[in-house]
Amino acid sequence: MGVSRFSTVSPPRPRVAITMGDPAGIGPEICLRLLQDPHVLDCCTPVIFGDWDVLAKVAKVCDLSLPDQVVTRVSDLQGTGPIVVDLRILKAAGVRPGQHQASCGHAAFKYLEAAVTNTLLGEFSGVATAPIHKQAMQAAGVGYPGHTEYLAEITQSSSVYMMLASDKLCVSMVTGHVGLQLAPKQLSRIRILEVIRLTQNAVTALSGKVPRLAVSGLNPHSGEGGLFGSGEEERVILPAVEAARKEGIDVEGPLPADILFIPSVRSRFQAFVTMYHDQGHIPFKMLSFDQGIHMTLGLPFVRTSVAHGTAFDIAWTGKASPKSLINAVLWVARLAAGKVISGSSSVLSPIGRQ
Amino acid sequence: MGVSRFSTVSPPRPRVAITMGDPAGIGPEICLRLLQDPHVLDCCTPVIFGDWDVLAKVAKVCDLSLPDQVVTRVSDLQGTGPIVVDLRILKAAGVRPGQHQASCGHAAFKYLEAAVTNTLLGEFSGVATAPIHKQAMQAAGVGYPGHTEYLAEITQSSSVYMMLASDKLCVSMVTGHVGLQLAPKQLSRIRILEVIRLTQNAVTALSGKVPRLAVSGLNPHSGEGGLFGSGEEERVILPAVEAARKEGIDVEGPLPADILFIPSVRSRFQAFVTMYHDQGHIPFKMLSFDQGIHMTLGLPFVRTSVAHGTAFDIAWTGKASPKSLINAVLWVARLAAGKVISGSSSVLSPIGRQ
Repeated sequence: MGVSRFSTVSPPRPRVAITMGDPAGIGPEICLRLLQDPHVLDCCTPVIFGDWDVLAKVAKVCDLSLPDQVVTRVSDLQGTGPIVVDLRILKAAGVRPGQHQASCGHAAFKYLEAAVTNTLLGEFSGVATAPIHKQAMQAAGVGYPGHTEYLAEITQSSSVYMMLASDKLCVSMVTGHVGLQLAPKQLSRIRILEVIRLTQNAVTALSGKVPRLAVSGLNPHSGEGGLFGSGEEERVILPAVEAARKEGIDVEGPLPADILFIPSVRSRFQAFVTMYHDQGHIPFKMLSFDQGIHMTLGLPFVRTSVAHGTAFDIAWTGKASPKSLINAVLWVARLAAGKVISGSSSVLSPIGRQ
Repeated sequence: MGVSRFSTVSPPRPRVAITMGDPAGIGPEICLRLLQDPHVLDCCTPVIFGDWDVLAKVAKVCDLSLPDQVVTRVSDLQGTGPIVVDLRILKAAGVRPGQHQASCGHAAFKYLEAAVTNTLLGEFSGVATAPIHKQAMQAAGVGYPGHTEYLAEITQSSSVYMMLASDKLCVSMVTGHVGLQLAPKQLSRIRILEVIRLTQNAVTALSGKVPRLAVSGLNPHSGEGGLFGSGEEERVILPAVEAARKEGIDVEGPLPADILFIPSVRSRFQAFVTMYHDQGHIPFKMLSFDQGIHMTLGLPFVRTSVAHGTAFDIAWTGKASPKSLINAVLWVARLAAGKVISGSSSVLSPIGRQ
């Protein structure tokens, strides 16, 4: 345990744990498509945690190939080709594609649990997750509203944050899935400083270059000198930016959020720290809707996720795009390999094929 | 008073009152450039409220033409060419370009006052305003933080709202320049319904077509069924949308704000109603930074404004773009003329040349 088993390649290829997500969604299809991607196979050994029976059925209805290797225990893993860890939780016959079902919520949670446990045991370089369905998870009695809450608890990480990343934009949020009224109350100098640090680390590792960061204000026009809001910019955000600068981080702010993402301003920075969900998500999705990835900052391992949902409307139809999952896996692989990415004018573009 | 003096053209050309804005900013330059624009001269009679001495100096340093006609009283206006109403408040020698000065704040307010008063008296079809500087206004002891507050008070309009418009996006905000913590508290069913109605009217008048509207949620994922926030979507926003539908308005919502502006969703709607400043301003400025206009909804006359500030850094240098002001004036002219705009795939593009 904790020791890589790779012996045939040098340096060792990162092994990435990938969850199949909700079986009734597009997760199985995008996992199968991912396993055929030459760029993924070139960079890492992708290991799917899921149900073989479901994958086999989806491969049939979507006319996709199945990988050669399937194991039922992580300890049986060998080789560097694509592998499925068959957790044998569900049979395909019991899955109604495009519908949320307790059995699928339960299965999706079990895939996650197995992937994370084995990553914590040192078997994998990191975890990339396919989409789960909140209502299915609730129906299954899983007590976590999403991946992130489970990951924070299981790893005993007190502060986890979300970063959205694509070749067009990297943006982190200081507050997460909370009502808009709560978000300002959750801001603190410490949290903002922590997100600045984590974002700098992640983007440096991803791009091989030290980024220039921008931090947004909270209120319209960044408060306009205290005119709007309760002086959050002066009391909380600016001190965090100044503390980060003292640590040597190249960061500017707080800047008005509506100015930050116009092309001429955006191009001056390589990453952005925003104060609340939509402040970061609106510009990110406008620029990189289905190609970006989510990254959880603050965990003891690398965890990325697709930036889309289960897409029940096109589940098991052969229409799903694996782009976001491919990028999520490639980012884990690159971060794990510690490779410096270069040769492109875009900060992060060589990671994916976005 | 109250009767148009146009007699040489049929139908009468709209006469648009234009404020020169802060004399130390780019206002004088963009006014001069506007007066040379053939499209503007074709659609309306532009009348600048400002200081001739300042315009003459800026024309000289920026190598721009001055209009032939200048009057000191609105009652002396005649003809349909470009005209300056010289209010004789400031001499150019006293203006330090690029610096906020009480004298300039005072002058900017006087231009506004004259333009609005004469519009209320029926002399003009509407008002387009060049940018003012808040600190200069404050230094001059003007008790209004911006144009809108003054306009609301002078016209005794209890509810005024801001709409941003360009050929790429039309978006209104239910709440305005208030701290982010206050915005959710200012939402009400009545206010949202009012903004839906006003937006529909404005966009119908501008485009000649009845628009399909989208209304955003307040919280992340539009609250995700009450999971985030205090149920504002169900309690406040949805009832307003339903009430608007009962009135025959083609409107959908509340929809998650981060999904609303991705290209495939955005293209389904002709206008958007958002809940707070940055929710509308972030997507708008990303798409139409210096070419859009602001429109004040809820006043007894049409009022538009540039979507940028005084740009002190390039004041009096000949580098300022008049695009936003040109569009602001053209929108007043079009709305006043009641013309139906057609012949373009873009909802509103024929209005300006953006």
